[in-house]
Amino acid sequence: MCSIDQVGIQIALTQARKSFNEGGIPIGCSLLSVNGAILGAGHNQRIQKSSPTLHGEIAALEDAGRLKAGVYRDATIKSSSPCSMCTGAILLYKIPRVVIGENKTFSMGGEDLLKSHGVEVVVLDNEECKELMAKFIREKPEEWNEDIGEE
Amino acid sequence: MCSIDQVGIQIALTQARKSFNEGGIPIGCSLLSVNGAILGAGHNQRIQKSSPTLHGEIAALEDAGRLKAGVYRDATIKSSSPCSMCTGAILLYKIPRVVIGENKTFSMGGEDLLKSHGVEVVVLDNEECKELMAKFIREKPEEWNEDIGEE
Repeated sequence: MCSIDQVGIQIALTQARKSFNEGGIPIGCSLLSVNGAILGAGHNQRIQKSSPTLHGEIAALEDAGRLKAGVYRDATIKSSSPCSMCTGAILLYKIPRVVIGENKTFSMGGEDLLKSHGVEVVVLDNEECKELMAKFIREKPEEWNEDIGEE
Repeated sequence: MCSIDQVGIQIALTQARKSFNEGGIPIGCSLLSVNGAILGAGHNQRIQKSSPTLHGEIAALEDAGRLKAGVYRDATIKSSSPCSMCTGAILLYKIPRVVIGENKTFSMGGEDLLKSHGVEVVVLDNEECKELMAKFIREKPEEWNEDIGEE
């Protein structure tokens, strides 16, 4: 993990904490260019905005706004284990590198699809990511299941 | 194609025409339950809202708002050939049936991934869908390429 990744993960974690403190799902995300420019950041908005599609990654892409194809192609996205929608968004824009805070608390299986398309996937073992998610899932299992399309 | 599909396609086309008339990408979408209840509808918002993620399908899911898992599982989504992000959203919520207005003007390859997960994919050959898309791509190729992550 390079120093730019450390900045990116801290931005994602700040977003995750913000969402948790609002009563929302504590998944944040940042999108950074290869030289460390912050292109966008955001967090899951299911609870705050009644949104079924504003997962952390989608919120960060929205925050970045309209970008030319080439800008995505040297970017890194930092978040949690991506669901199929967010995996698809990463593939749509050909983002070449994904840093995942942890995938012990939950894993949506997107890592394999990303790797099969040549995306570099770095999985960390960040304790704060794990603690925030475990606490949320324990306290609000129904909201979490809704977010991942489960009963 | 059943009569509920005909209603769904007309709603998607109405959304597509609305977007075209606003100068936007003419892809609309509807989400209907198996008994014909309209759960949500929307259209691509790249140009109107500077949004890189509000494709037609995502806009319709957003319009539907938060739904329980079971509601998606007897729904049908009607749109164009889905990109990888929208394909992933359909898989996330386990929507079992997708009706595509046409896939001659463009095809993003999502159909095969959907079918490999057991999703029923119905591809129509709707002339108005083809005409709207062909006209937009001819008139605004840069915006279209941006929407599909190409240079």
